[in-house]
Amino acid sequence: MVEALVWLGTLVFAATGALKGVEKGFDLLGVLVLATVTAVGGGSIRDVLVGTLPPTALRNEPLLWSVVLVGLLVFRFHPRVQALGPLIYYLDTLGLGLFAALGAERGLQAGLGPFGVALAGTLSGVGGGVLRDVLSGEVPGILYRAGDLYASAALLGAWVVYLAYPLGPGLALFLGAGTTMALRLFGRRLGLRLPTPRG
Amino acid sequence: MVEALVWLGTLVFAATGALKGVEKGFDLLGVLVLATVTAVGGGSIRDVLVGTLPPTALRNEPLLWSVVLVGLLVFRFHPRVQALGPLIYYLDTLGLGLFAALGAERGLQAGLGPFGVALAGTLSGVGGGVLRDVLSGEVPGILYRAGDLYASAALLGAWVVYLAYPLGPGLALFLGAGTTMALRLFGRRLGLRLPTPRG
Amino acid sequence: MVEALVWLGTLVFAATGALKGVEKGFDLLGVLVLATVTAVGGGSIRDVLVGTLPPTALRNEPLLWSVVLVGLLVFRFHPRVQALGPLIYYLDTLGLGLFAALGAERGLQAGLGPFGVALAGTLSGVGGGVLRDVLSGEVPGILYRAGDLYASAALLGAWVVYLAYPLGPGLALFLGAGTTMALRLFGRRLGLRLPTPRG
Repeated sequence: MVEALVWLGTLVFAATGALKGVEKGFDLLGVLVLATVTAVGGGSIRDVLVGTLPPTALRNEPLLWSVVLVGLLVFRFHPRVQALGPLIYYLDTLGLGLFAALGAERGLQAGLGPFGVALAGTLSGVGGGVLRDVLSGEVPGILYRAGDLYASAALLGAWVVYLAYPLGPGLALFLGAGTTMALRLFGRRLGLRLPTPRG
Repeated sequence: MVEALVWLGTLVFAATGALKGVEKGFDLLGVLVLATVTAVGGGSIRDVLVGTLPPTALRNEPLLWSVVLVGLLVFRFHPRVQALGPLIYYLDTLGLGLFAALGAERGLQAGLGPFGVALAGTLSGVGGGVLRDVLSGEVPGILYRAGDLYASAALLGAWVVYLAYPLGPGLALFLGAGTTMALRLFGRRLGLRLPTPRG
Repeated sequence: MVEALVWLGTLVFAATGALKGVEKGFDLLGVLVLATVTAVGGGSIRDVLVGTLPPTALRNEPLLWSVVLVGLLVFRFHPRVQALGPLIYYLDTLGLGLFAALGAERGLQAGLGPFGVALAGTLSGVGGGVLRDVLSGEVPGILYRAGDLYASAALLGAWVVYLAYPLGPGLALFLGAGTTMALRLFGRRLGLRLPTPRG
């Protein structure tokens, strides 16, 4: 079940990466590179930092080939994929919550404290998107989009995993992923936004 | 023999990095940084991902000092080096083929599957150039230059290594490097180009 | 004593990162991300390269939380922090010298040669700032600011550590950090500047 959700989240991340490549007018290879980087980049950065080498994702061949398949489909049918905007938004939120929670668990297993766990979870959720943005020549969206709780939602979800882990791994992951998703989905509706510097 | 070719490839990569630094108007340190990053960055990224730490290149002092020497020569005599354009093109293609094939072999030794091996080989060949471009404030050329088969040539060469390895390492490396070089050199002449997104 | 200076240097680096985030108009999360990346990014890159995983800084919870506290203070009181410009300049120079020297020692302990040690020291001193610049969408300042001996000062200080280490670790670190700080502080006054390419 979690395995199936991880697949779904990874493939949706791949689609958002491929769409960015199409939007930038990159060639087929560029689109596939952005799909792959967005899909597995965050977890790979986390794996490098906690010392799990080679990173888990680079040893999951069926997942990697599926990422490329999604990249090819987006490349070929991008107008139809773009029309799925709202669905992608929800599935991307699902992926964010899931990866942040599972990444936090990996941080716990590596013996990190609350800050390290939050970092491991957040990087797992948003690291691929940051790489995607930097490679596209853009400032990472997570740094300035005050009105879209994305990295901050992942961060709080990772903390919930840290705090709730003594209650049992399954429950902690569920609560953590739920926190991230709820913050992202309801944050904008409730008018939550991060402050920006004054003056 | 392979050792000598690796040196040659590394030093040509260093020259292309240094030329980019000169073109950007960077200072001496910036030119040497780009030379070093371009020369040993790809192999170092690969070594981080497969867990060979410190990366091999960072322990090869004679090679590192030679990279700096090339950087100094380019800094001082860049108009003459630029005049060597076609020669640099051929030697850069040699380096690309070689690093992609040797990087693929390192991926095989790390127990990776076909996608992981292709990634290890491609990163070895193009990772330094990607770092060079990002540090120079440019979008990596491999993402959008549809008419120059570069990363895709490295990718296919790495796959040839993967497929031909059971026939013997030497033959596999030869075939893989040859595939990459042939695709790069004849691709443009044959009008091969990667597709770009429609509409 | 060294411990206290490392804290001071790290927190000043955090302040410079947070100031960059404020200057760019990033939101609160962006400011805190830049503070953290600038403060612990250089040492973490070095730790990845020498294979110390997870990186030391990611296991130092009190330091990480202090970095965030500094980020929050800068976010809230940035005009007053900016008014401390000269003080920040001196403390930043202290941090640079210290991190370059301590990073060089870590390179020595990893068995690296003179080039590798210089690289480990320089990356420790400037790597966080390079990440900060790249994430902010800027070309790293160390590549082109010929008149501000910064990375080159770190590099020479790291070499002094390498050369003086046989005289005793304490003395070597003192001489190395002193070299970096002296070069930075007096370099501009003495009109020292790196050459830039001709023509």
